[in-house]
Parts: sequence; structure tokens; C-alpha cells
Amino acid sequence: MRKELTIGLFGFGCVGQGLYEVLEQTKLINASIKQIVVKDPTKDRSIPKQHFSFDPNDILEDNAIDTVVELIDDADAAFNIVTAALKRGKNVVSANKKLIANHLDELISLARENDVSFLYEASVCASIPIIRTLEEYYNTDSIEAVEGICNGTTNYIFTQTDQGKTYEDALAEAQDLGFAESDPTLDVDGFDAKFKLGILVKHAYGLTVRPEDIFHYGIRHVKVEDVNFGKEKGYRLKLLSSVHRNGDRLTTLVAPHFVREDQATYNVNDSFNAVSVKGLFSDQQTLIGRGAGSHPTASAVLSDISALQYDYRYEYRKSNAVDNLCLDDSSLVRVYVASEELLALEDVHLEQSFEIYHGGKYHYKTGLVKLKTLKKIDFNNRPELFLAVLPEPIGIEKEEILEFETEKALI
Amino acid sequence: MRKELTIGLFGFGCVGQGLYEVLEQTKLINASIKQIVVKDPTKDRSIPKQHFSFDPNDILEDNAIDTVVELIDDADAAFNIVTAALKRGKNVVSANKKLIANHLDELISLARENDVSFLYEASVCASIPIIRTLEEYYNTDSIEAVEGICNGTTNYIFTQTDQGKTYEDALAEAQDLGFAESDPTLDVDGFDAKFKLGILVKHAYGLTVRPEDIFHYGIRHVKVEDVNFGKEKGYRLKLLSSVHRNGDRLTTLVAPHFVREDQATYNVNDSFNAVSVKGLFSDQQTLIGRGAGSHPTASAVLSDISALQYDYRYEYRKSNAVDNLCLDDSSLVRVYVASEELLALEDVHLEQSFEIYHGGKYHYKTGLVKLKTLKKIDFNNRPELFLAVLPEPIGIEKEEILEFETEKALI
Repeated sequence: MRKELTIGLFGFGCVGQGLYEVLEQTKLINASIKQIVVKDPTKDRSIPKQHFSFDPNDILEDNAIDTVVELIDDADAAFNIVTAALKRGKNVVSANKKLIANHLDELISLARENDVSFLYEASVCASIPIIRTLEEYYNTDSIEAVEGICNGTTNYIFTQTDQGKTYEDALAEAQDLGFAESDPTLDVDGFDAKFKLGILVKHAYGLTVRPEDIFHYGIRHVKVEDVNFGKEKGYRLKLLSSVHRNGDRLTTLVAPHFVREDQATYNVNDSFNAVSVKGLFSDQQTLIGRGAGSHPTASAVLSDISALQYDYRYEYRKSNAVDNLCLDDSSLVRVYVASEELLALEDVHLEQSFEIYHGGKYHYKTGLVKLKTLKKIDFNNRPELFLAVLPEPIGIEKEEILEFETEKALI
Repeated sequence: MRKELTIGLFGFGCVGQGLYEVLEQTKLINASIKQIVVKDPTKDRSIPKQHFSFDPNDILEDNAIDTVVELIDDADAAFNIVTAALKRGKNVVSANKKLIANHLDELISLARENDVSFLYEASVCASIPIIRTLEEYYNTDSIEAVEGICNGTTNYIFTQTDQGKTYEDALAEAQDLGFAESDPTLDVDGFDAKFKLGILVKHAYGLTVRPEDIFHYGIRHVKVEDVNFGKEKGYRLKLLSSVHRNGDRLTTLVAPHFVREDQATYNVNDSFNAVSVKGLFSDQQTLIGRGAGSHPTASAVLSDISALQYDYRYEYRKSNAVDNLCLDDSSLVRVYVASEELLALEDVHLEQSFEIYHGGKYHYKTGLVKLKTLKKIDFNNRPELFLAVLPEPIGIEKEEILEFETEKALI
């Protein structure tokens, strides 16, 4: 028999309001919102004022409320709310990837100590049930790689640049449509995608990774020439978050990738998200769905609430088998580096170089670079450079690739 | 704490052997196979003879065995094994879609009466965790449609015909590669895809549908001209199993579909499967993965075994909210019907017709047909006809479509 839940909701933005609407409309769940706490008393709301309180203790100190749903933007305030709720023996559902990526081990311990559940399906790829799938389906499989489009804003912008718009026009359009914030840094510089990757790594491999240990580079500096390079080769640009396992070593990164038509993410456009998981036994699986939006995100929150009704908890089973698993910065990444400034290309040292192209106004080189090398360069603050990961070539043997010393050829 | 499981395995074909290998290799599950029962004592096996027995009672009457995994081909024999195991209080994991589609309600009742679990993730789309996702993630959402490529054999063949091969050559190749049986009827006539659709409908809507009530038409009669028609329009052929909800009415069918490039199944090729679910709140989700093969199917069986360790059971929550839900045969389907024989086209009465094409040797018409009309024609036994569902046109208003009376124009 499923328990009845009494919910205290923090935040009534896009997702909070979506959850409210979805709970009103669905007859399939036995849960009700008792209290909503918001920050701003002056803001106009879509439902009557008496539903709102401005004091967190109206939820935290109400013993009738067994479940806290935290849907606010501010990760620091969210930390205070979530820890206080867990300590008071309330289950918590959150969608706050920054909070979770930065404090996961602490929050897991706190939930265990207080014998409650802490769920956060909506924090990664909104409507796509990837955390539950990793927990429940892949807990018996050995995962070779997880790779995904985890940020809808950047995917929307790349879909527009693929159609010939400039980055600036595409961003402005995304902002007009509400897909991008007025300060888009978290999205377009890859922070958001990095937080999500950290959470995925925890559930796929059991390893806790600090966000600052993941290389992240966003889409801000893409130019029409880069898009055209992709078009000539039949590639599309996607901001991918990826982790690949090689023995005991994990390579994690967030960066624009050129993807081939035969790759699962190629046709995932606009604000859709996708995650591919490659398991030793199950081979490759891809889950595609809405990565943002009021109702899709709320539906993930709702699936967590539904799971709480039968006392569901993440088990983090892989955490018991982490062994010697660690991040590896020495792995080689196949990249494209481009710039209007020929000399700028030299700042990215390739271990092995495949191609060099000198155009009148635009230049690029391709080859293998150490992740370690990439980490030393603050690409998000190098507007004159653009870097993207290249797919493995098909049907070309390694020996056939033209190889030469980049630095020599450039000078 | 997860229980230790003792398994009795029926069948040691492709999937049974895969499960054996996967269990040997993974350290992530606390389960062991105590006994394997197979039918044929003379067959060579990949592991020593002492592992095998030929008497089902060696499993069914062994009280130390708490879990029966049924992986045999014969649906009637499987029915006897599964019911006997459930009655003896053993959990059952099965991959037998024909058994499940034909006896689901009976088996669910039997499992409930005996307080055991009956799981069958591997029966639909092998490695794709679609049943669990419908049960756990969509139990709170209202589902508008489920549509998928649920049969790997036909998808492999259509991928080959898309590349210019004839149906006959593509089938022969699939048989050589082990993707198709020597008698391919179950796959190529759409039976397999229909059994899977029945199971999906149960978990998506709670409604039990008899396989014989679902229209199914396979791929056997596709001709090069049909493939070329698709190519001109930018479509690819896929055998889709689909259910669409309209109020209280469900439209179910299995048939070849022309899909557009922007549809999620367009790029799902070879023996891959895909299922798209459209929810009221979560919008559209697509899961793509291996729909067949030894290890991918075994990995789905293993995820069921893993779930049994914490007493997981399907809840069929939607079954409590079926209300007036019923199948609807009066809905209109947008189709393409083609033949070398002009008069044969007349056998398919269109309610509204959009196009008629008379070629020298090949003819087709497009328009709207009632599902009821399709059900009256035994398309699998009409080699001179080919029928495929068409996608909704983009950017064309209904009024702009040229409409006229098919029958009049043809004569």
C-alpha cells in the first residue's frame, strides 16, 4: 500500500508552479501540498496569496509535513533548507544540480543518519529518468561510458547556429524565448552540464567527483567557420558531458563535440536532452527527452514523490565497488582547435597532429591532445579560440592518417 | 540488505547462455544458478554436461530454488513451467512475449495469489528498460501515446532495403547472420511486435488487450518501388508498434510506417529497437537500445533478478484507473497503399483520398482509412499489395490537400 504524503514546497518558479499544476491534474498520486514557502512577498503569483508563506520554518517545523520538495535557484539557501529538512527526519526531493554536485556525499550521509530518502531525478536532464535507470537497471552491469546532451539551452543555441545563425543571434533568441537566462554563464560556459556529469558519475561508477576536477568548456566562442567545418564533414555540434572508463581510470569532460550522423545525439535538437549509456552486457542505450521546461521537470519531481510512497531510496551500489577507480587526466582526446589568429593555435599543444588548415582569415588544426593540457587553458576566457572534440573517424586506419609535427608546420 | 537468490534456469539457448556468462562475469549481484533444465539431451553445450538436467521437476520441486528464470522458445511449455513455478511460491523471470501477451492477467493473478513476483523486462525490446520505466516513471503521468520499433529482425531487414537490397536478399542475409529464423513468420509478419505491443499497453494504460484484437501487418511484401517512394519524400520504413490515446479510446496497430527525418525512430537502424512515450506532463521520451542479442537480453533478465533481491513487483497501477478505456477501430489512419495491380488498390477503401499515382508498372494511392477497414483485409497474405502508415505532413494545412474520390478516379 502506498503512503499518503504531505508536502512542503520551497520555490514557486517555473518548476514549482508546474508541480503544483501537475499535482492538481493527476489522479494517480496520493500526495498534497500543505505549505509553499517563497522568498519574495511582493511578487505576483498565479494562485491566491493564502497558499504562500515566507518563513522556511513554516515547513521545517511542521511535523505533519513528511516530504520537502526544494525547487529554488539559490544553491546556498537550498543547502540550508535541505540539510535542515533531512535533520528533522523529512524526505527531500530536489532539482538543484549545483547543490547536489557540490555536497552529494554530505547529503547522502545526512539522509542515512536520519533514515530518510533524498531523491533528485529532476536535477539531471529533467524528464529523462536517467538516475533511476542507472540505479535500478545498470546496477548489475559494468558501465563503459556515459555521454549526453545534458543542457537544453546550449543545445537550442547549437541547433540555431547549425541553421546558419550567429552565436549572438541564437543566444538572444534563446533569451527571448525563456530558454536562456539574462546572464547565461552557467549554461553557455558548461557549468550546468558539469554539475550534471558529476551526479551521473556518482550513480554510474560510485565515485564522487568534485566539480572543479572536471574539465568544462562551453559554447560561447563558436564561430560560423566552425559550424561550416562540421557541415562539410557531415557533423553537428553538441555540448556533451561524458565519462569513459578505461580499466580503473575515468576520463570526464564537458566540451562541444562534433557528432556524426550515425551517433545517437545527432538528431537530438532544440532544447531536447539525451543520455547514452554503454554497458558491458547491455551494449549502448540512449534515452532522449525534454531536458527543461515546467511540466517535464515537474514530472520528474513527481516520479520521485511517487517513489517516496513506497520508501524508495537510491542505493549507490557501485559505491561499494569503487576499488582503485580514479580520474585520469593523461588520456588523449581527439580535437579540432580553430582561430582567426594563427599563433593562438600554438597555445594548444597536440601530442599527435593530423591536419592543419590555413585559410585566409581562419585556421584550424586537428589531432590528439592530453586532457591535462586542456585543463591548463581557460578556454571559456579565450574568445579568439574554439575547441571541439572530434568523433573517431570511420573506415580510416590509424596508419593512413597524415601525421606531422604541428608546431614545425605552423612556423 | 539484498537477498541472496538461488536460480533454476529453463533453457540454454542464446539468452540462457548469455545470462550464464553475465552472472559468471559480474560481481555486482548475489545470485547463483543451481540447476539448468534443457529439452534436448543430445545437443552439444558450451559448459560441462553435469550442469544440465532434463526433468523440469529438478527445478520445480527443489525448495532451495526461490527463483525460476524461463528462457525457452516454446510458449506452451513455458506456460506450464511458469504456472507451476508460481504455484510453488517461486518468483519467475521470463522473456517469453508470446506467453505473456496471451496469458498476462492469469499470470498476474497467480503471482498475487502465491505472493511472489513475476517480472519480464526482457520480453519487450530486450535491453531497453521500458516496462520498468512505464511502471516507475510514468505511473503518475497520463500517457498519450507509445510507439516503437520493437522487433530487431524487421528493422535490420528494412535498414538493408533502404540501402537498395531487395526484401528477399535482405532476409537471406539476416538469416545468415542469425538475426532471423529459418521460418521468419513471427518476426516478418508482425506477430512478435504485436505481442510486445500488448504488454506495453498493459503497463502504459492498465488495459489488457488480446493479441488477436490488435491489427498487425508485417514487412514481407515491401518492394523496391515502396522504398523509393519513401526516399523521394525523405522517409525511411520502420515496422512500428503503436498505441495512441484519444479520450477513452485507444488505437493500437502494428504496421510498416514511413518516418520522417525529424522523428526519433528515423536513425534507429540495424537490429536496434526504440520506444517513444508521450506523456501529458513529461512530453516525449525515447529510449533506444539493443532489441536482441545474447548479452543485451541477458542484461535485462539480470536487472529483473537484481530487482527480486529487494522484492520488487510490478504494481500495474494504471489497472485501477482503466475506467471506460477501450480499443477503437473507427479511428482514421493516414496510409500509402501500393501494388503492381491497379485493381488491387480498390480493395482498400479510403474514407478520404489525397493522391493517386499511376505508373507504368506500379501504382499507389494515399489517404485516410479506417482501422476497421484494414482489419478486414489479410494483408500478410496479399503479396500483390503493400501498405504503410504515413507521417502527418508538416506545414500543409488540411484544406490544401488535393482531395477526390479514389474509386471514381481509378476507373
